[in-house]
Amino acid sequence: MEHPENDDKYIGLTVNSGVTQPPVVNPYLKRHRKKRIPTASEMVEGIIKGDVTMLSRGVTLVESLNHDHQILAQEIIEKCLPYSGNSRRIGITGVPGAGKSTSIDAFGLHVLKQGGKLAVLAIDPSSERTKGSILGDKTRMERLSVHPSAFIRPSPSAGSLGGVARKTRETIVLCEAAGYDNIFVETVGVGQSETAVHSMVDFFLLIQLAGTGDELQGIKRGIMEMADGIVINKADGDNIDRARLAQAQFRSALHLFPPTQSGWKPEVLTYSGYYELGIDEVWKMIDRYFEHVKSNGFFDRQRSEQAMYWMYETIDDRLKSDFYRNPEIAELLTQKEARVLSNRQSSFTAARDVLDIYFNSILKK
Amino acid sequence: MEHPENDDKYIGLTVNSGVTQPPVVNPYLKRHRKKRIPTASEMVEGIIKGDVTMLSRGVTLVESLNHDHQILAQEIIEKCLPYSGNSRRIGITGVPGAGKSTSIDAFGLHVLKQGGKLAVLAIDPSSERTKGSILGDKTRMERLSVHPSAFIRPSPSAGSLGGVARKTRETIVLCEAAGYDNIFVETVGVGQSETAVHSMVDFFLLIQLAGTGDELQGIKRGIMEMADGIVINKADGDNIDRARLAQAQFRSALHLFPPTQSGWKPEVLTYSGYYELGIDEVWKMIDRYFEHVKSNGFFDRQRSEQAMYWMYETIDDRLKSDFYRNPEIAELLTQKEARVLSNRQSSFTAARDVLDIYFNSILKK
Repeated sequence: MEHPENDDKYIGLTVNSGVTQPPVVNPYLKRHRKKRIPTASEMVEGIIKGDVTMLSRGVTLVESLNHDHQILAQEIIEKCLPYSGNSRRIGITGVPGAGKSTSIDAFGLHVLKQGGKLAVLAIDPSSERTKGSILGDKTRMERLSVHPSAFIRPSPSAGSLGGVARKTRETIVLCEAAGYDNIFVETVGVGQSETAVHSMVDFFLLIQLAGTGDELQGIKRGIMEMADGIVINKADGDNIDRARLAQAQFRSALHLFPPTQSGWKPEVLTYSGYYELGIDEVWKMIDRYFEHVKSNGFFDRQRSEQAMYWMYETIDDRLKSDFYRNPEIAELLTQKEARVLSNRQSSFTAARDVLDIYFNSILKK
Repeated sequence: MEHPENDDKYIGLTVNSGVTQPPVVNPYLKRHRKKRIPTASEMVEGIIKGDVTMLSRGVTLVESLNHDHQILAQEIIEKCLPYSGNSRRIGITGVPGAGKSTSIDAFGLHVLKQGGKLAVLAIDPSSERTKGSILGDKTRMERLSVHPSAFIRPSPSAGSLGGVARKTRETIVLCEAAGYDNIFVETVGVGQSETAVHSMVDFFLLIQLAGTGDELQGIKRGIMEMADGIVINKADGDNIDRARLAQAQFRSALHLFPPTQSGWKPEVLTYSGYYELGIDEVWKMIDRYFEHVKSNGFFDRQRSEQAMYWMYETIDDRLKSDFYRNPEIAELLTQKEARVLSNRQSSFTAARDVLDIYFNSILKK
């Protein structure tokens, strides 16, 4: 099901969108034709019933930069919270070219065959610059994009990584309240966003390609050690042997890594997203993971830690943004940077000087 | 050379330590016998001349929690800054049992044979709890600890990781001003301290052992990808084959990692710290690294980035500590944690509530 609202932030939010319409007299008809903003309770009721239009509107509010929309969004999230949490949250990453869209299409279809509903979200703070880099072209998920049980939402486009990630995390709450019991969160695998995704999912899947190392160019160091599973795509035709070799190499590499906190041993599998080979095996691995972490208590522990992480991360973000947005500070920092870089002042006294001026400026307000 | 001052924070800092002495009349003698605190200029002069006693006193001031000492320390650091920077800063990590002390003794001796001076520092925020875990027992560096060109200083013991790391970074400045052209910074390889060390050294060396994986237990995930070189210790006697096998495994694992920012390909070597086998090869690798990063500009770029990192890190630290030390905040956070964990409030609105109260409390002051 395509939801035209997805791409229009203002549908349903404009109080009077009918200015070019002929005047109407019947007051009932007039009220009826106006697109009234639903109240928080009405939207929550709709979301919980699984009304996709209401869910879309809710997500649009979450993503809106308008202050009133944000207040409404927070009320909706708060009311949805008791209905959230009942899903598998799966992070999926891999460099451009690894075949993420095709894979998500195949994985998603496989999941939906078993019943339930699937939401596919994304975090891509760079989407403003590289438009369409991620989930931009929904047609690449040919079957999911028209599947009645799939809800696909591109990355919120505006703002910092922190802001974008926060919106995605809030969107997860709404999707779960709407009954989506599988949530995929996609990232491009080249930036800081993987840490953010890792902090909101239960399982982190890294899509790799067989190759000589060139394909790894784009992957950021450290991502491999975050993965709960590494899957090597394009294991088909002539490429099967190379994929198997890569599998063996990754397996022995993982063997050298220290154990994970969950006690789970990350697995390495091969598959083909395009020819749909090995999809079932990948999903059985993910099933095994969830059995493992639910039985040893890690699942709940990680979710609690993540909730705490986001609370403290939000606090830290705001403390910093208040500081860096202070008009006196920006200029001073530039001066201090120059002094530190030319060895005229230590990093620490430079920091102290700037902080003293900041706290004085707060008190003067 | 052993410096008894190392372990006494107050030597040289006490204005009147002679209270139990018989009274003296000769005013010259009296002045002479009192241990006067040298001025910042006097200490800097001494440090630059390479006076080890003055260097020790300077480091003691850097580590002191006394406010007046801190002011004096900052003045000394500032004056030493123009003389700093001319060293190779090498981070060395590995789990307990990997043979770090013996290795540092062997590496250090090797470096000193080529001339120059060596300072061995440490970062170990846990040293208060696990006394003696790191550099605590200087006798384990048998030869370095009595070498006239070596300066060994255990981890500052008090405070948070940020505080301890900051003091170590400041100590590097004093050591460099005193002419130490090789600086080793040691960590235990099990905590957060590696990131801090990584942010203050030019080269990061990871000491590993050959083994079945049990030895990796203690190493934190992500450290391997920070390493510029991995060296496998205890490659001697019966253990040589196992060490060579581990070498091959680590090499193929590194091959799967994405390239480093420096363009340097991390190497894997075997050696024996105890029998002093392969020490020269390890050091030739480090020489090659420095040639590489000095010729491609990465050396200077990384040093500048590190200076900026510490300035901004100090700012962020202070912004946070001011918040978390606020008396109204601590209790409120406990309440909010409970609400978030029981799904009664979202992480984000909980954070917002606490922040509102914080900023109001600052303004009320």
